[in-house]
Amino acid sequence: MPTQIESLFLINGEAGNEVLVTDRGLHYGDGLFETLKIKKGAILYWEHHMARLLSGCERLCIPLPDIVLLRSEAERLISEYGNNSDAILKIIVTRGSGQRGYKPTTAAKPTRIIALYPSPRYPENYWKDGVRVTICKTRLAGNPRLARIKHLNRLEQILASSEWDDPAIVDGIMLDMDQHVIEGTMSNLFWVYEGNLYTPDLTQCGVEGIMRHLVLKLAEELQLMVVNGHYFVEDLLSADEIFITNSIHGIWPVRQIDQHTFKPGPVTKHLMDLIQ
Amino acid sequence: MPTQIESLFLINGEAGNEVLVTDRGLHYGDGLFETLKIKKGAILYWEHHMARLLSGCERLCIPLPDIVLLRSEAERLISEYGNNSDAILKIIVTRGSGQRGYKPTTAAKPTRIIALYPSPRYPENYWKDGVRVTICKTRLAGNPRLARIKHLNRLEQILASSEWDDPAIVDGIMLDMDQHVIEGTMSNLFWVYEGNLYTPDLTQCGVEGIMRHLVLKLAEELQLMVVNGHYFVEDLLSADEIFITNSIHGIWPVRQIDQHTFKPGPVTKHLMDLIQ
Repeated sequence: MPTQIESLFLINGEAGNEVLVTDRGLHYGDGLFETLKIKKGAILYWEHHMARLLSGCERLCIPLPDIVLLRSEAERLISEYGNNSDAILKIIVTRGSGQRGYKPTTAAKPTRIIALYPSPRYPENYWKDGVRVTICKTRLAGNPRLARIKHLNRLEQILASSEWDDPAIVDGIMLDMDQHVIEGTMSNLFWVYEGNLYTPDLTQCGVEGIMRHLVLKLAEELQLMVVNGHYFVEDLLSADEIFITNSIHGIWPVRQIDQHTFKPGPVTKHLMDLIQ
Repeated sequence: MPTQIESLFLINGEAGNEVLVTDRGLHYGDGLFETLKIKKGAILYWEHHMARLLSGCERLCIPLPDIVLLRSEAERLISEYGNNSDAILKIIVTRGSGQRGYKPTTAAKPTRIIALYPSPRYPENYWKDGVRVTICKTRLAGNPRLARIKHLNRLEQILASSEWDDPAIVDGIMLDMDQHVIEGTMSNLFWVYEGNLYTPDLTQCGVEGIMRHLVLKLAEELQLMVVNGHYFVEDLLSADEIFITNSIHGIWPVRQIDQHTFKPGPVTKHLMDLIQ
């Protein structure tokens, strides 16, 4: 298979596949990441991803990475990979290599990792007919200091995504400790009810997805009424349409949540047309 | 300085200082760690640390490491370091190297990292007169699925330990989202009030320290009444004696919490004598 290239990595600008064992990303999950879609060699929504990365660095007091340098390193990997390919670009920024102990020292120099992975191949009907998801038992703990940014502390998502084995299930919906629906393990969640668009409030937990941001902007342009709030599984299950979003697949209608079935509706389809 | 040896590392049994960039410990904090005290070449409380490590692996569904192998690798590093030295042994077990995506695959083979660090040198008066601590603003989010085990998702501890610059402050006390006192960023918390021993409940968050366990066992032997519950800063500040514990320093009396001062008391001193 000549098109199947292995993953490529640049670590602080050097090709390689190893990082220092003293990296604080490994010891404490002390860093941030972004996952970007590469479509025919072009990076999608670069500015949005970089804005979230910088905001995460500010929140964790990690020195801001040089965005121009990150871009040139990303382009370098993409051109090695084949300039016209689809792929996934992952950028990790950690606080860098450090001594033992939680307290960050100013001596640490952030580590930047740029990785290029083969593009996942999802069945066409995920967009056309919708996907199956499940409600997870693992809960998201709320901490506004860590909410919305895409940091490297992801054990809750790992435990949640271990809950199902059925390969027909593509994601799991996670609730917070007060049983509010929040998001998928790797997606944001939207639903339509009586013509209005609903999405969970992410003040306490959850990741502020790039595709979520774009959907909210489109909804505003379409003069859709958007409600950002605290909702329960019952609210979600009474929806007229449900969809999940992320940077890689865009918008997927949800056709089934456990034993409950749904149909892709007109609002979802309209948003999907506009996003494409 | 001939005694100042650099840190030593064994990664899956091989001497080196690098791990694969695809390790899930780095990408998601998907793993566990233990920090053990080496006193004149002897590993203290090995069985207790291994019991917690195994319990953490079980909780995260990471295949259990071979404890005999971990021990032999630890001994190998200690003998390289100088058989009669004091040091800190850190053991990290991650789920191993993996593909992109949260969902663990059975293909991943856990990574084991054994590290030996120089022993920290604390002033004698930390044990004699007590230490200064502060109350942190960063809160611990509660999630029983992650409570008590020593996992690699430690951003809350990092943010909390970034809150003070004064080198005279040795640790910060963290509260949960309901303002209950829970623990120090790197220690467990105890206090004595009217002859009874109090320590915070760790059902929702916090790490179940090895030294905490030993103190609770001693307290039982001494027929001290131990209360494990939900308490506020005011309760802590009305204590007759306060102390913090961890595997490296044992028991440190607390002599100051922000502007409030305390004195090492008879219960603390008795427990310290028994632990030594």
